[in-house]
Amino acid sequence: MEHKQHKEHHFASSDMVKDIVIGMSDGLTVPFALAAGLSGVVDGTGIVVTAGIAEIAAGSIAMGLGGYLAARSEAEHYDHERFREEQETKYRLADEEQEIIDIFSSYEISPDDSRPVVEALKRNPEIMVDFMMKFELGLEKPDPQRAVASAGTIAGSYILGGVIPLLPYMLFNNGHHALLWSVAVTIVALFVFGYMKGYFLGNKPWYSAVQTTFIGGMAAGVAYFMAKVLS
Amino acid sequence: MEHKQHKEHHFASSDMVKDIVIGMSDGLTVPFALAAGLSGVVDGTGIVVTAGIAEIAAGSIAMGLGGYLAARSEAEHYDHERFREEQETKYRLADEEQEIIDIFSSYEISPDDSRPVVEALKRNPEIMVDFMMKFELGLEKPDPQRAVASAGTIAGSYILGGVIPLLPYMLFNNGHHALLWSVAVTIVALFVFGYMKGYFLGNKPWYSAVQTTFIGGMAAGVAYFMAKVLS
Repeated sequence: MEHKQHKEHHFASSDMVKDIVIGMSDGLTVPFALAAGLSGVVDGTGIVVTAGIAEIAAGSIAMGLGGYLAARSEAEHYDHERFREEQETKYRLADEEQEIIDIFSSYEISPDDSRPVVEALKRNPEIMVDFMMKFELGLEKPDPQRAVASAGTIAGSYILGGVIPLLPYMLFNNGHHALLWSVAVTIVALFVFGYMKGYFLGNKPWYSAVQTTFIGGMAAGVAYFMAKVLS
Repeated sequence: MEHKQHKEHHFASSDMVKDIVIGMSDGLTVPFALAAGLSGVVDGTGIVVTAGIAEIAAGSIAMGLGGYLAARSEAEHYDHERFREEQETKYRLADEEQEIIDIFSSYEISPDDSRPVVEALKRNPEIMVDFMMKFELGLEKPDPQRAVASAGTIAGSYILGGVIPLLPYMLFNNGHHALLWSVAVTIVALFVFGYMKGYFLGNKPWYSAVQTTFIGGMAAGVAYFMAKVLS
């Protein structure tokens, strides 16, 4: 039991880390790139700040509500599949037995060897359903609180990430000046964020730092180039 | 075998559908909302088109490369964990046996009942590793081709989704005119996309259509309002 609780805690915090990563990856990259692109073609910084904030508002809502709906439809999917498994366990028990035997057969375990497991599961239909959810369908019971928490975390991280590259455009009137500061500040932020992302998700931190900075730089470079070409 | 192949095919196409949904959800929403927000505060449509295209460039790169890296790190994670399981199966077989017995115990299957399964797995170490990857860690072997395909699908869907709301701004010089057409065209596109998303991902199509349209409208409304307030 101790072990199980520890594991669940581990999963819950890793879900939150993933949501922060989802929100901040895009939040640090897209408003940064949009502002860089616009700063090359408009005078002053007013329109850059306006566009940047409109983008942050749109992006955080789209991603936050998107995350909420994804978490909710995951929960609905689980309930739907669980109901189906419960019906099957009640009304088509022989088929379910055969499915369990088939799962084991695919690991070269003979029906004779898996028979005691099948018999044990048959003594407890509710646990048989648990077993099928996990081992036939590969589904874990989602946390009901997760949909709202996930939406908030993603949207908040997007806003936090998006404000960083915009700050210089709020502080300076000279667009070129602001662009240089925005690039400098955002490269540092992308690098630190990439490092932490790698650290928390169990990948190589320095590698992740370089990758994340590269993606942000690429996106901003192409956006800058596209805006220049168009005007 | 027939059954297994069918299942794998089903998973592969659902991965592609998910990538299309990821790209197009944001592509239809964020450029639409940004353009709507900007159209309320600038004269003409030139700057709206420039900002919109810079956003599409930035967003598609950020999401496409993001998808590529996510798929790659998933593959690396699988390989890493598989190597660990292989080592454990070789050098700490008794621990692995106990882990299998523990997994079954958590489904109220006694060590006596799971013993034949453990013995069968011990006869074939490679399959024992397969078993642990799936039943202890819940990991499926990722498709090595998936990283590149995933990046391309997400980026392409983002671009396709993003161009739809921008088209009216390319065709009309009058910003107000363009905004009305953009809203009309995008609401239809969001509705159709939401319906198809629901249909292919196994949720209620009409419900999904309304939800998707609502998110896009919310994002655009807030972006429009934020841009108005700021200027």
